[in-house]
Amino acid sequence: MSQIPGTTPVLVRGGPRWDGAAPDPRAARVLAALRRELPADRVRADADTLAAYAGDASGLLPAGPPAAVAAPRTVPEVQAVMRIATALRAPVVVRGAGSGLAGGATASPGGIVLTTEALDRILEIRPEDELAVVEAGVVTAALDRAVTPHGLRYAPDPASAEYSTIGGNIATNAGGLRCCKYGVTRESVLALDVVLADGTLMRVGHRTIKGVTGLDLVGLLVGSEGTLGVVVSATLRLRPLPVATETMVAFADSLAAVGGAVEAITRAHVQPSAVELLDEASLRSIDDNRGTDLASRGRAMLLVQTDGHGAAAEMAELERVVAAAGVSARRVHGAEAEHYVELRRSGRGSRRDAWRLGEDVAVPRSRLVEMIGAIEDIGARYRVDVGCVAHAGDGNLHVGLSRPMRPGEAEPPAAVHAAADQVVRTALDLGGTVTGEHGVGTLKRPWLTTELGERQLDLQRAVKAAFDPLGILAPDSFLAVEKGPR
Amino acid sequence: MSQIPGTTPVLVRGGPRWDGAAPDPRAARVLAALRRELPADRVRADADTLAAYAGDASGLLPAGPPAAVAAPRTVPEVQAVMRIATALRAPVVVRGAGSGLAGGATASPGGIVLTTEALDRILEIRPEDELAVVEAGVVTAALDRAVTPHGLRYAPDPASAEYSTIGGNIATNAGGLRCCKYGVTRESVLALDVVLADGTLMRVGHRTIKGVTGLDLVGLLVGSEGTLGVVVSATLRLRPLPVATETMVAFADSLAAVGGAVEAITRAHVQPSAVELLDEASLRSIDDNRGTDLASRGRAMLLVQTDGHGAAAEMAELERVVAAAGVSARRVHGAEAEHYVELRRSGRGSRRDAWRLGEDVAVPRSRLVEMIGAIEDIGARYRVDVGCVAHAGDGNLHVGLSRPMRPGEAEPPAAVHAAADQVVRTALDLGGTVTGEHGVGTLKRPWLTTELGERQLDLQRAVKAAFDPLGILAPDSFLAVEKGPR
Repeated sequence: MSQIPGTTPVLVRGGPRWDGAAPDPRAARVLAALRRELPADRVRADADTLAAYAGDASGLLPAGPPAAVAAPRTVPEVQAVMRIATALRAPVVVRGAGSGLAGGATASPGGIVLTTEALDRILEIRPEDELAVVEAGVVTAALDRAVTPHGLRYAPDPASAEYSTIGGNIATNAGGLRCCKYGVTRESVLALDVVLADGTLMRVGHRTIKGVTGLDLVGLLVGSEGTLGVVVSATLRLRPLPVATETMVAFADSLAAVGGAVEAITRAHVQPSAVELLDEASLRSIDDNRGTDLASRGRAMLLVQTDGHGAAAEMAELERVVAAAGVSARRVHGAEAEHYVELRRSGRGSRRDAWRLGEDVAVPRSRLVEMIGAIEDIGARYRVDVGCVAHAGDGNLHVGLSRPMRPGEAEPPAAVHAAADQVVRTALDLGGTVTGEHGVGTLKRPWLTTELGERQLDLQRAVKAAFDPLGILAPDSFLAVEKGPR
Repeated sequence: MSQIPGTTPVLVRGGPRWDGAAPDPRAARVLAALRRELPADRVRADADTLAAYAGDASGLLPAGPPAAVAAPRTVPEVQAVMRIATALRAPVVVRGAGSGLAGGATASPGGIVLTTEALDRILEIRPEDELAVVEAGVVTAALDRAVTPHGLRYAPDPASAEYSTIGGNIATNAGGLRCCKYGVTRESVLALDVVLADGTLMRVGHRTIKGVTGLDLVGLLVGSEGTLGVVVSATLRLRPLPVATETMVAFADSLAAVGGAVEAITRAHVQPSAVELLDEASLRSIDDNRGTDLASRGRAMLLVQTDGHGAAAEMAELERVVAAAGVSARRVHGAEAEHYVELRRSGRGSRRDAWRLGEDVAVPRSRLVEMIGAIEDIGARYRVDVGCVAHAGDGNLHVGLSRPMRPGEAEPPAAVHAAADQVVRTALDLGGTVTGEHGVGTLKRPWLTTELGERQLDLQRAVKAAFDPLGILAPDSFLAVEKGPR
């Protein structure tokens, strides 16, 4: 495993090379077949491209290079890639923008990286049905902007929305800030066109809002991280653009105080559209990076939004319950409100001189503050710097663990991994889950059996085999048989 | 196939007997094993019980009686039933309240009917996490009432909520009026405890609002109509009770006018909590049954609700857009509003002297009025009385088809079936689906291949085989290989 040091993971292009690695014996045949069947500009195998597409934003890279990167522009081209893969038993890893944080798009050595980036057309926008049909490579925020003139929006808004793709969002069942009101990606996907491992094109789901005809294969494909099929297009549900949005910011002196405020919000008869919690370390990180003074204003910050016709009344109610919980909040508007949201989304800095690991756990909302307290204890015990930002409305925490890099260190110290392991196990102990929205990928596989149990994992593998009996798709990902601790 | 004449399907208890049918050779062994392993009062095999539990509210009955009805009161008892079934290769049909409308709970001759009605405990209510854990046999409305004192509600509200069970709602992914705002049953299920065909108990999902650890087996089980496992308990998401609800009623002179109003509602920046459309035949049916005068007030009625802090502002906006579409609406309050909702839910009458068939299709919302017009044409062409009520906010139509019974008729005339077939095919032609919320069961199987295609149906069967390799669960239901037209 290779860690990219010092980054808040973003698009990683051009990592290590495999100059010394022995070429995979299948690679030449796979590449030749792809060149035979696809237009010349749809297949690349130069060292730079292979390196750039071998991994995702987790920084994880495979032991050897893939044989080729295929960038089909049409569905028949995707089918051709999959038929070649099946004929040659070549592993295929599907890749959107490569912004994943869990190593789900880590190439298989000697296999094919199928990038959906050239499948980038918005095929239909139907305001009268509040839906859009888009290809998998459409960038999420681009879709959102395209439907704005129709008074609509695409609700899921992962922090990566400006560069991640709909296909990638579907693969991970991405969340975001708004999902506490509007649901995760799953709740916005009505139908999928998917190419199976053998090249068959299949449509699952329907253009209707409701429909229960047969097993819900849409729900199964959403979040399946490329293990079941290649999503080539999606029929997506759109939502009305809210007529108003209200924003409130609160700083609290202690985690307990902010926890009381979050609990009060949960108990209020209000469905906020965002409830974001940032701890002291996260505030300091933003301050260091952006010159703000957030950390001087409290040990934790709460950023809350409501939207729609009831936004003002809902926010008044939330101000009341938060005040009753002993936390004083301030309503912010316009550019100031946008500034806080932007700081939350992308304000934290990345230190080039530190090893950094990110976790993405979720706990029942009532255990959120207990979880943050436990994370602080873990940081102290392992002498690892920790920071949390939480989608508090969903109990979903993003935990940054970091340790300064020492001269000559080629790998992150074991303490960082040990602390991360403790964070995940604590989440499970509190009734939580290993990953709230980033996916299992390769990085979170070590905890999969603990959460799911061997029997359920075997069942999940059997379901995969129903789709992909030869194990062509993402054979090294979360449904692979674990080969030992990472 | 046997049709219960003249009913709006409700709980059917005590149907035809199978006095002439040869006993299934497995039946005695199955019954003996159940009596050996379960408490005496948990197993029944008297003729009345077998008849009462052999079918559901569709009126469909199997060719021969089941061997026994098992009513386990505990999870280990459910596991015992499934181990017996697996050992003896006896088919098992899981049954909630038997209120299903698609024949999904039709017993297999010589098999076991496993009713979940004795699994009726509410295990946990956690206001601080907005969730409840309940056994499968809990009645849906009973759960809703139990959480009311906590300021919460269980949002899915199928018309059957007063007698259908959570387990049955999960099996069909039930909808209801409120689901246009709050989502169908799937959106309220966080985790399931399920007993597999071989008796293994497995928990899938999580107590957290979000979570993407592994394939989404919760989503796969919801709507699987008892083909994959026996749901014994569920962790359910609750929602805040809205602080206010507003109701509006409108009568229109033509379908085109009401269609324009529905389209205007869809295009408004408002998410209503119910948009119900009743056509003239449905209004007449209510008038006949309840002495109202709805049909004298228009050719179609629209019933719209909004709820939450923005309810009043949202309804004002909807009044405006509906008026702009040429339909005048009236705000109703309190008891009058409740009366309209109750008439919509259960007002239609059932004529004892008519053959009656119900369909449940969904179309993209923009095709709703076209669909209702086509249904009227089909009624005229086949000389079948037709009536529609629609969850217009979801494009989901319930179509009643009926024909007066003639003396001596033992079966409904072919025209009723032919008209129903045309209704379903028209929905598919308009981009719709065979069933919006009732499920496929046995009755809708003839159209399954048309909608899904052979390849997808085969894939669905392979997924079932991953869960239930011996085909113990619901072997005659929608995933069975079709034996010919019904």
